[in-house]
Amino acid sequence: MHFTSERLIDGDVVERRFTLGDIPGILWTPASRPAPLILLGHPGGLDTMYPRLAGRARRSAADGFASATIELPGSGDRPPSPDAQAARADLRSALAHGEPVGEIVDRLVLPLVEQAAPEWQSAIDALLALLEISGPVGYSGGLVGVGIRLARVEPRIVAAGLFAGSFVPRSMVEEAREVTIPLHVLLQWDDKGNDRQLALDLFDAFGSAEKTLQANLGGHTGVPPHAGEDAARFFCRHLR
Amino acid sequence: MHFTSERLIDGDVVERRFTLGDIPGILWTPASRPAPLILLGHPGGLDTMYPRLAGRARRSAADGFASATIELPGSGDRPPSPDAQAARADLRSALAHGEPVGEIVDRLVLPLVEQAAPEWQSAIDALLALLEISGPVGYSGGLVGVGIRLARVEPRIVAAGLFAGSFVPRSMVEEAREVTIPLHVLLQWDDKGNDRQLALDLFDAFGSAEKTLQANLGGHTGVPPHAGEDAARFFCRHLR
Repeated sequence: MHFTSERLIDGDVVERRFTLGDIPGILWTPASRPAPLILLGHPGGLDTMYPRLAGRARRSAADGFASATIELPGSGDRPPSPDAQAARADLRSALAHGEPVGEIVDRLVLPLVEQAAPEWQSAIDALLALLEISGPVGYSGGLVGVGIRLARVEPRIVAAGLFAGSFVPRSMVEEAREVTIPLHVLLQWDDKGNDRQLALDLFDAFGSAEKTLQANLGGHTGVPPHAGEDAARFFCRHLR
Repeated sequence: MHFTSERLIDGDVVERRFTLGDIPGILWTPASRPAPLILLGHPGGLDTMYPRLAGRARRSAADGFASATIELPGSGDRPPSPDAQAARADLRSALAHGEPVGEIVDRLVLPLVEQAAPEWQSAIDALLALLEISGPVGYSGGLVGVGIRLARVEPRIVAAGLFAGSFVPRSMVEEAREVTIPLHVLLQWDDKGNDRQLALDLFDAFGSAEKTLQANLGGHTGVPPHAGEDAARFFCRHLR
């Protein structure tokens, strides 16, 4: 892990860009150290996602948590994946024509999950080696698959806040049964890019003894402020 | 409204029993006055429900809210309703034999809603006439029908916290479309006495521009503490 830049945001939050091998990432640490860590999941494209990621990191820093994220395979400055590009084009076309997307979602998401999950685990290795990060580790991000996989396979992740706002392969419903950590699932009730029934099926499938689904009215980007606060309190309960 | 007893609980919360005509009720007021009012809905039987009602009232008093409740028609010390008793026996029998309950639930709940809703409105009249209560008014209770009816017809109720843990007539789904106040709906995901799909349909039907569904793992009485806290914050946002 090599740090490539460092600056202060909001007075006392340190934002550092880094590379992990050839994978770019960003780490935010609060003034209080050592801090528990929240991994910030996203749909790919760190530069585009930066304002929202930094906003989430600032909020977590106010609660005493460090936050970190890495670029997804095939996104941002990483080499593009021709297969993923083809699947994405097929998905757009299928959606435009109202055709079923299940097989395309599998082609798009499953290889991504296979490649990304070990990369995020390597990031956890490197981040927990830093003096300013103590663990435990939480995951906060889309339900797209990486979050479910990490929640299932990575024992250092003790709690996950998942946003049901993306395409999920049906096979992940089976995988969800093996997830046992506490979960806080946010569902935007009118999210057009989201299959509401699949999100409910996934919530039902998770094997966790403590799981909360919070559904709010509105579309993909319309999460109300109080929902963000409830999610933050979830991490405070489980990471402090 | 005649007060029949008065005592202090938790040091500074005044608990007063009252009668409104021949309907018994309880009022809890916090030290800070005048206070907004939360109506505490329940399934009937004030004596049986007292510990849970008083617990909710204490929590609301800590947030600066008065709480009040009245007995339902046919419950507790009020004259029994032979029709409701027959419907309740039919419901138990149908559930024991795995038979459909829709028509029985209609017979049990709809007359109750017709009679109870105006009684709760009279209680609001009497309570808002007290110097120690200022409004606005919130409703917190079961989704059984009284809550939906009051949320629809009573303009002094500005927010409702509803617990999806009881039988609801299908016709209330239509009535829910006319509810427009902010809602916070709690659903116990594994509540055996509750039709999960109907609860989701109801949530979908509510016409409110701001509505939140929070589902937690567990049965009817297994609402986790953090869910109670989130519901309390909902009332703080809307009644203060």
